[in-house]
Amino acid sequence: MELGVGGSNPPCCTIKMVKEKKLKPSKDLPLGFVDRQEKELLIRDFVISNIKEVMIKYGFQYLETPSFEYTDSIGKFLPDKERPDEGVFSFKDEKKWLSLRYDLTAPLARYVAKNYLELPKPFKRYQLGMVWRNEKPGPGRFREFLQFDADYVGTKNLQADAELFVLISEILEKCGLEKKDFIIKFSNRKLTDGLFERLKINSSSQRLKILRSLDKMDRLGWDEVEKLLGKGRRDKSGDFTEGAKLTKEKIELIKKVFKEKEAIAFATDALNEIAEMEKILVSFGLKNTENYTFDPTVVRGLEYYTGPIFEVNLNFEVRNSKGKSIQFGSIGGGGRYDNLVSNFGNFDCPATGISIGLDRLVFALMQKKDFKMKTTRPVVICVFDKSKNKEYVEILNKLRMSNISSEIYPGEGKLKKQMEYANKINSPAVILYGDNEIKIGKVTLKNLKSGRETSVAIESLSDEIKKII
Amino acid sequence: MELGVGGSNPPCCTIKMVKEKKLKPSKDLPLGFVDRQEKELLIRDFVISNIKEVMIKYGFQYLETPSFEYTDSIGKFLPDKERPDEGVFSFKDEKKWLSLRYDLTAPLARYVAKNYLELPKPFKRYQLGMVWRNEKPGPGRFREFLQFDADYVGTKNLQADAELFVLISEILEKCGLEKKDFIIKFSNRKLTDGLFERLKINSSSQRLKILRSLDKMDRLGWDEVEKLLGKGRRDKSGDFTEGAKLTKEKIELIKKVFKEKEAIAFATDALNEIAEMEKILVSFGLKNTENYTFDPTVVRGLEYYTGPIFEVNLNFEVRNSKGKSIQFGSIGGGGRYDNLVSNFGNFDCPATGISIGLDRLVFALMQKKDFKMKTTRPVVICVFDKSKNKEYVEILNKLRMSNISSEIYPGEGKLKKQMEYANKINSPAVILYGDNEIKIGKVTLKNLKSGRETSVAIESLSDEIKKII
Repeated sequence: MELGVGGSNPPCCTIKMVKEKKLKPSKDLPLGFVDRQEKELLIRDFVISNIKEVMIKYGFQYLETPSFEYTDSIGKFLPDKERPDEGVFSFKDEKKWLSLRYDLTAPLARYVAKNYLELPKPFKRYQLGMVWRNEKPGPGRFREFLQFDADYVGTKNLQADAELFVLISEILEKCGLEKKDFIIKFSNRKLTDGLFERLKINSSSQRLKILRSLDKMDRLGWDEVEKLLGKGRRDKSGDFTEGAKLTKEKIELIKKVFKEKEAIAFATDALNEIAEMEKILVSFGLKNTENYTFDPTVVRGLEYYTGPIFEVNLNFEVRNSKGKSIQFGSIGGGGRYDNLVSNFGNFDCPATGISIGLDRLVFALMQKKDFKMKTTRPVVICVFDKSKNKEYVEILNKLRMSNISSEIYPGEGKLKKQMEYANKINSPAVILYGDNEIKIGKVTLKNLKSGRETSVAIESLSDEIKKII
Repeated sequence: MELGVGGSNPPCCTIKMVKEKKLKPSKDLPLGFVDRQEKELLIRDFVISNIKEVMIKYGFQYLETPSFEYTDSIGKFLPDKERPDEGVFSFKDEKKWLSLRYDLTAPLARYVAKNYLELPKPFKRYQLGMVWRNEKPGPGRFREFLQFDADYVGTKNLQADAELFVLISEILEKCGLEKKDFIIKFSNRKLTDGLFERLKINSSSQRLKILRSLDKMDRLGWDEVEKLLGKGRRDKSGDFTEGAKLTKEKIELIKKVFKEKEAIAFATDALNEIAEMEKILVSFGLKNTENYTFDPTVVRGLEYYTGPIFEVNLNFEVRNSKGKSIQFGSIGGGGRYDNLVSNFGNFDCPATGISIGLDRLVFALMQKKDFKMKTTRPVVICVFDKSKNKEYVEILNKLRMSNISSEIYPGEGKLKKQMEYANKINSPAVILYGDNEIKIGKVTLKNLKSGRETSVAIESLSDEIKKII
């Protein structure tokens, strides 16, 4: 197979006015995937280094599980999906199915089960990594995103749950947000458990259906959720979703809790845990309604939660891709899942954890903060005469030794092209070292912002450049 | 679906002597995938931060393309495979096939083609990211690995090719290797082109077959390669690989170049480029045979190379997983691919680049260097009485404010369990703050290495701890 044009040496990188041949490969990306540029990546690095610092300070261990797991290890816990294989990227291996992880919690459960005897109990680990969701492609719907997770495995102690609030607050502040910029909304899965008992709803599939309907409150509002609890709901596109078919009385009781936010007195377990957590949060200096708030409408779509659940919300406004101002909303959340790990074997292993979507957080930070995180662009040493390469390299080595980002013009164009290149890459300055300069042993340093040219001795070049970058 | 045991509150994390039920999910990982632990990850972070520093200094831009691409965008350039879909993880989307990237070069070509008009020419970019190969699983054969790539796109200037040697040398030295620990072996694809012309081998599939046979020299030795060039070769397992069926005379000429390492005078283009590169390398202070060496047996298995090609080899011995001492060999390489990007559209876009396998590099560094990269384990504040939680948190906050890794024991066991936990996580010290201590307003600090206990005032606790960690 012949890959390129080959043969003669056409001029470098000029566009040929030739009709495209058939069967050129696609230049586009599949929907839901994006290329990420330097500015975003540098802010992401900044966020990640803050996370790592806090994680070390809080005594978490660093772990990385692979992208792939056996489908049967992680398939059953997929959020918001009825069928186990829906929403994941799966591949048939020699004998078994593999899947790309859709979160970092299911792989952690597998890891703990596999290494159960060797691990400290409790086991505190954090992980940073891509997760994949095979959602139906659509604008703004990503199918790959970077997640940060921290978990306490092997403890029922609510100190752990409370500390998740503390650590994410510290991370967000380290990233430049103020306390007023975010709030943690929390509730407890035992609240709905108590409610379901009261309502005599015992089937777990029926319970899950109701939870997932309630989880849509933010997006749809109570009136639409009420339809999902009742006979069903027809959306704008005309699609009909079958409802949970609850009686009017049952819906009324749910409404009290979820629309009117009345905590229900009979959910004793939930209320006790909420009170205990608040005590711990206060001792950490977090303030009710300012830093965290009890909110029964937090339900979380995942089935495996068993206790405290929460969402981390950004309070400030951001602009979406169309320039419209929107409330940013949740960047992640988490909760207690006391039965997930034990699903793998013959042990009980209560656990609690947090997941943060880093791409969303970075997007919000980029809009919120003026980061002054400047992207360093190199000083360009212009090439007058290739045979003088040795002289150019000497200057280059001096600059790089002083840790100045610099390069010899890497292309093949004449001086005009070289200046265009330097401007295109936002270079702060170019260095001209032609015959005249070589004769007098000085270089011409051209500041590309001011346009000013100065004649500089080579030994003071680094210092002069540091003044203008 | 019911996930866990639920209901009653069993003791935390104790193993129940119950027979495993059927249908427990697998705790194992698919072959070719591994969990990575803290020590390795911290060294990897160290390597990555060195790479980023050098990349900024050399004026490269940071880019991240997604894990998935349309299969037709990257499928044709797969190394060492006859069929386009062999060796990749592919997935049928709504209409088209998607694949996980198997390298970072094909996605770069797609990115440049997509953004051709906006990019500076030349365009210098670096990327760090996972790549996936759907190889037949086997021990020690990874199917996911982290790669670092740096490329110059849009230039034929050999300065770029030479600088790839310079930048990887600087990175490796920054990572703690000495110059004698590694060497860059290089050759030029035009050498084999010249040879093939001389031998009148014009079919590109025949050329590729010969290149891939020659690429196996390191592993198989000349005698076996000779069989692949001739009638064919039967391996130890009994499998027969059809040979290139060259005549004895042709094989003899190839032998001269590849076994006896005689450069061939008629490959003028190759020899000119090799001479020009050596001049540039010398100007950068790199030394022939010490830092780099011309080696015609470097051929590279990828079809798309068109000019200089090279491999980065580590010289020192390491032990494999069985404790056997082995030469480490290549951690990556690269070369010039002047026709790959133009494959996407109507422009010519010569390019050259380097790919380094970071997992292999980290593995070698772990064996070679005593990194003193200690994993920070937290000081553990023991819990005597949950109602004293506020007092424990006060101490914790003081320590964390002093940036000391610390935690309140996160589990629920009694003091004995807490000490076991602290030892298990290699904690440097525990803090005891029971009724007696609270009474006198001092804590007991127990150094877990020496076993020594000291009574310390709370205001000097951070300083005391810093002395022993």
